[in-house]
Formats: sequence, C-alpha cells, structure tokens
Amino acid sequence: MSEYIDTLETGKTVGVVKRRFFTFGDNGVGLDLESGRTLSPVTLAYETCGTLNADRSNAILVCHALTGDAHVAGVYQEDDPKPGWWDMMVGPGKPIDTDRYFVICSNVIGGCMGSTGPLSRNPQTDQPYAASFPVVTIGDMVRCQRRLVDSLGIEKLLAVIGGSVGGMQVLEWSVRYPDRVCAAVPLATTTKHSAQAIAFNEVARQAIMADPKWNNGNYHDTGRPEHGLAVARMVGHITYLSDESMRHKFDRRLQDRVELSFDFEADFQVESYLRYQGNKFVDRFDANSFLYLTKAADYFNLENQHGDGSLVAAFSRATCRYLVVSFTSDWLYPTYQSKTMVKAMKKNGLDVSFCEIEAPWGHDAFLLPNDRFNALINGFLDRTYAERMKGGSDAL
Amino acid sequence: MSEYIDTLETGKTVGVVKRRFFTFGDNGVGLDLESGRTLSPVTLAYETCGTLNADRSNAILVCHALTGDAHVAGVYQEDDPKPGWWDMMVGPGKPIDTDRYFVICSNVIGGCMGSTGPLSRNPQTDQPYAASFPVVTIGDMVRCQRRLVDSLGIEKLLAVIGGSVGGMQVLEWSVRYPDRVCAAVPLATTTKHSAQAIAFNEVARQAIMADPKWNNGNYHDTGRPEHGLAVARMVGHITYLSDESMRHKFDRRLQDRVELSFDFEADFQVESYLRYQGNKFVDRFDANSFLYLTKAADYFNLENQHGDGSLVAAFSRATCRYLVVSFTSDWLYPTYQSKTMVKAMKKNGLDVSFCEIEAPWGHDAFLLPNDRFNALINGFLDRTYAERMKGGSDAL
Repeated sequence: MSEYIDTLETGKTVGVVKRRFFTFGDNGVGLDLESGRTLSPVTLAYETCGTLNADRSNAILVCHALTGDAHVAGVYQEDDPKPGWWDMMVGPGKPIDTDRYFVICSNVIGGCMGSTGPLSRNPQTDQPYAASFPVVTIGDMVRCQRRLVDSLGIEKLLAVIGGSVGGMQVLEWSVRYPDRVCAAVPLATTTKHSAQAIAFNEVARQAIMADPKWNNGNYHDTGRPEHGLAVARMVGHITYLSDESMRHKFDRRLQDRVELSFDFEADFQVESYLRYQGNKFVDRFDANSFLYLTKAADYFNLENQHGDGSLVAAFSRATCRYLVVSFTSDWLYPTYQSKTMVKAMKKNGLDVSFCEIEAPWGHDAFLLPNDRFNALINGFLDRTYAERMKGGSDAL
Repeated sequence: MSEYIDTLETGKTVGVVKRRFFTFGDNGVGLDLESGRTLSPVTLAYETCGTLNADRSNAILVCHALTGDAHVAGVYQEDDPKPGWWDMMVGPGKPIDTDRYFVICSNVIGGCMGSTGPLSRNPQTDQPYAASFPVVTIGDMVRCQRRLVDSLGIEKLLAVIGGSVGGMQVLEWSVRYPDRVCAAVPLATTTKHSAQAIAFNEVARQAIMADPKWNNGNYHDTGRPEHGLAVARMVGHITYLSDESMRHKFDRRLQDRVELSFDFEADFQVESYLRYQGNKFVDRFDANSFLYLTKAADYFNLENQHGDGSLVAAFSRATCRYLVVSFTSDWLYPTYQSKTMVKAMKKNGLDVSFCEIEAPWGHDAFLLPNDRFNALINGFLDRTYAERMKGGSDAL
C-alpha cells in the first residue's frame, strides 16, 4: 500500500466559503465568441479564499478540469463533510497557501455549476438554451475569466494554475494575456488533444446523443438522458485512471460474492465502481454541458489558435515563467505532450521548469496527495512571490 | 508511411470456401456448461481450407477473436471482393500454408455467425434464446471445438493458433486438452483480463443495456438496440488501436471541411471513422452476442480455472510447445501479460518461444501485414510439422 499513499491530509482548511456571481453583458453587450456568435448576459460563479493584499499582487487563479466547479477549497457550511475539489492543495499552510495568497476559482462558461451554460435561461426565448447554446472554446472561457479578474481590480495574476482541461486554460491565459500573468502552472495537460483523446470524448458524446431521452438536447420537460450520461462518464473515468492503479484498486476482485454469478450483474468490483461513478455523476452534472465542455477540449489547439500552426510561434507571445508537470502513468495526456510544450517554450527563451512525477494513478494524479508534487508547486509559487515582492525579476 | 506498411499482400488465396455446420446434442444430451446449465442442441458453424492428410497430422485450428467468425480465409463465391478475416495469414504459400496444412476455424458458441448463441431458437420455447441464453465461458467454447475436431477424426491437432480472445481459446486448449495439441500459438492475448480490460467491456455492455431498445434482451420483435451497440463497438475500437496509430491515421485532420463547424457534427476524421465503425458493426453483429462474448472474455482466468490460483500450476498440465507473441503498442493486452504467461510456462520446463514485435498499430497488429510476424508463425509451424513428420520429438 505504502507507495500509493504519500501523504495523509492533515492541514487545516480554509473554512466556510461562499459562492459568488459575476455578471457582465446584461446590457446586451456580452461576449463575442470564437464561433462568431455572441453570448449575453454572461455569469460566472466563483469563489475566493485568502485575502487580496493591498497592491493586489498575491492573486492566484485556479482553473478547474472538465467537470469541476468553482468550489476549490473549504466548505459551504461548518458541518459539511465534503470540502472543495482541491482542498488538498489550497488552504492555510498548504501548497497553495491561503495565508499568503488570494485564490480565485470560477466555473467555466458552458458548465452547469452556476456559470452561464446550456442550463441557463436564454433571454431571447425565456427557455433554457439547451442545445441552442453556442459552442464555446477554451479561449472563450479564459476571456470570461479575464473579465472576472478585471472586476476584482487585479492587474496581474501572480499565477494561473490548473490540471487537465484546467491546464489548457492556464496555457491559453499565458499566451493570450501575457501581461496579466507572472507565472503559469499547467499540470497533466496538453496543447492539443490527440486523436485518441478526441476519440474517447466522441464516444462519450455519442453515448449521450444515443440516449433517446437526450432528444436533441431538449430534455428539460421530458426527463434527462441519465443512462447515456452515466455511460459517458464511465468512458471518461477509465481514461482518468491507469492500468496499474485499476489493478491495485480492483484487480479481479469480486463484488459482494465469492463466485462468478454467470449473469450480467456486476461480478467484479471494477464494474460496480464504474456503475457507481456513472450514476453519481448523473446527479450532479448536465448532459448538454458535458457535450459542450468535451467539445471545447477537443477544439483546443494552441499552435493553430495563437501560432498559425507553430507551437513555437504560439509561445513567442508568452512572457511568464512556467512550471510544467506531467505524471508517468497519465496515458490521456502522456508526458511526451508536456515535453513538446516545454521544448517550444524553451525555444522562446522562457523560464521553464519541467517535472515528470512518478505516480501510478494515471491522469487523476494531479488531484491526489503526493509530497513531491506539493513541494514543487509550493516552491515554485514561493519563489515567484518572493521575486515579485522584491521586484527582482523583469518578468514579474 | 513506410514504417506502417511492411508487406503488400500478394499471395494467392484459398479460393471459394463453404460454411459447414456441426451439430451435437440434438438427442437432448448436449453440453454441460461451466455455469451448471446445459445447452442442447449445439451447432458450430465452421470452415476448412487445405486437405487433411492421410494420417490426419496436419490439422491447425484457428480460433477467432471477440466478434470474428468461421470465415478465416478465401471467399464464398468467385467474385466476392471480401475474403475471410485472416486471408493475409491463411492460404497457399502464406504463413499458415494451406498447401501443407488443413485449417479449421469455427464460430464460437455464444456468437451470432452460425453457431448456437442468443439468436438461436430455444427448443424449449421455440423462441430465440435472447437473454435466456446461458452465460458461456472460453472453456465451454473450447469443449465444443474439441467435439468438432473429434467429428473430423483428428486425434491431435498440429497447432491451435489465435489472437486476442482467440488466444485465450488457444491457452485453454493447451491446458485442458494437452494430449490433443502439438503446438499452441497465443497471440496478443492474456491469461486473464486486467481490471482495465474488464472496465472497457463493462462500459460497452452498459452502453447496450442503457439503450431502451435492448429491452432486457428481448428486441427481436421490437427493433434492435442499434445505438447502444454502435457505442459499444466504438469503445472497443479505441482499445484495438494505439495512440500512435490513431495519430498516424487521423491526427487532428478535419472531415470534409476546412474549419471547425462549431456544432456537434463529426468535425474530426477520427470522429467520423468511429461513427462509421459503430454503424457498420450494427449491420453484422447481434447485441446480445456482444454481451455474452465480452462476459466470457472477462471471466477467463487460466490460473483460477486450471491451477487453483497458480498460473504455474495451470501450465503444469500442458505438454505442447508454445510460440507466444505480443506487440509493443498493444495496451489492451500489454507485453507484460505475455511475459507473465511465458514465465509460468518456462517454470514447467515447456518449450516456449516468445517474441515481442515492434509494431505501432496497437492490439490490432496481429491482423495486419508484418513480415517479421509472418516469418515467425511460418517458421514455428514448419519446424513443428517437420518434427512431427519424422517423429523426432516426444512432445509431438
């Protein structure tokens, strides 16, 4: 067991946090999307922890992954047993130390956790957008986040940090708004999806769209496509783990039985676990949102969007320092993809630290306790903050 | 391109072949299954190529993979453009040379290509078995094949050969009927599914069972669960390829367009390809069969079934020589799984050749042209046959 548990969580938490909302475009002038369509009004649900200092130099934006939300750390009420999704990382004395930093996390547009998305009311029709919601991109998401950061009076973020699809947002920030970011920390991510990653997302989308209850996205009065969404989540979930972590966690152990059942119930623990994950997801997530967010991830292509087909050209726009982290067993965004981005950053003379962390858990590793990972993040942020404080680095 | 095409197919084919049927148990005494249930009658669809020699010493049984069939080589009629699934490997002058060998291939029970399976009529009810068909195992499939081999008057097969789920049948033959097999060639296979392999199968099954048209398996009068089955196939298909082969084949190339569509049509070639594969599969395969065959693969566990939990003990029953082949980019049944079986074979002092072939195509590699692979198979069979002919080896 020991190699699988590097750290027991013992830190304090940020305590009770509150979900807030930031809205723009309610005068009709909203966001011009990359698709050519417009969206207005636009609301972002967001949360903050820690205190913004007087010169507003200690703000860190955390970007969540595919189906995450703004609730990055702390709890909504004192006795809530379930803290935010990165409570391990964000809090007093934790790697992203809220005693020092002001942490912001917002739900992406297209999502279903309080920000404008397919579940939101379309002011033109007074109905939920559903499938008439415009296809949004990682760039669109980041442009909304910039407006939120503007509204908080923060001129330059100390850091933008996030894993997976959150890491795509980090990369987008660093290239799109170089003047607004001192440091960028893309974790377990990629500058563009491989064909295999697109393939998994497409199968998940097809699972949703194959469910007759999906009904071309119009299911709000007729019942949600729960079966399709559960299957979609199961597909995704396998890609978040690894062969090794699944063997460790389940191997071929049977679920609540001593012999094979010779029927189509869940014989194996791994089957039962996947069914559980699928069903649990259905309770918290909207099927249309899942379609939009996977599409945004598939569309993301830093070199095409910012470098005219050249990743080196895309990173020529950046000025921040980077900490790039990949994990050995992540087969969704394998290390070679991180190495490709690091190479392109370095060709531009950027200040880049890269670390491939040995971890057996697959893509999910960035969400799991790991002393080495924690120390890396903490050290990188501390150095960045110290230099910014003493005004020592031109880049900051 | 060159690294992807090792061989152009130039060989002759076996010409026109005929599907035949072998039935037993029509007197009511059928097969006692491992589940404890019985099945009767049992029909196997099978085909043969080449000529059985006078002393019946040149017979090779080919076992097909998950959704394969008995049509291993040749064509059903002169002008048929589509030969059998392993025509590349089986034919005059080909690695499994039908000028020398008598090749047999039968559709597994539980399948839907002519052998008894969920589509077959249940004599008790005069209706298709559908989901009342008993869960069958790799062992049950092999026991049926043995009866077929008996019926052809073949006492000892020169070789049993097959890839993937066909490789499981090969392993089962070698351990269950050691006196009936001179040589066994398990390709791109495993002695038991990993948790990850079970997980992919379970998601595929859930996709079928989530389709309301599946209707607990009773869809014969109400229309087949085509959407669910297509999604199931898409899941499987990704596991048959590799990250590298998908990048080579599709990368991020767009399908019939020059810009992203900003909708949920298939933007990328890989999406279009998967949809095509899913839809094509629906035309040729039965959804219930897919459930039964994936379950049989998940249940397969050579060490539990024949070695009381020890793989070494399982192979202590074997006496044949082995050629074990894995492929570098096969992540469904990775090389480490082949190495595990080779180690257990060697601990029993068995004559084992093992080769990991460098190939970028993923699990599907055993179905694709590859000079090295062809030479390995051909050489191994030739040596086995030559020794058997001169009676030189005790093992043969």
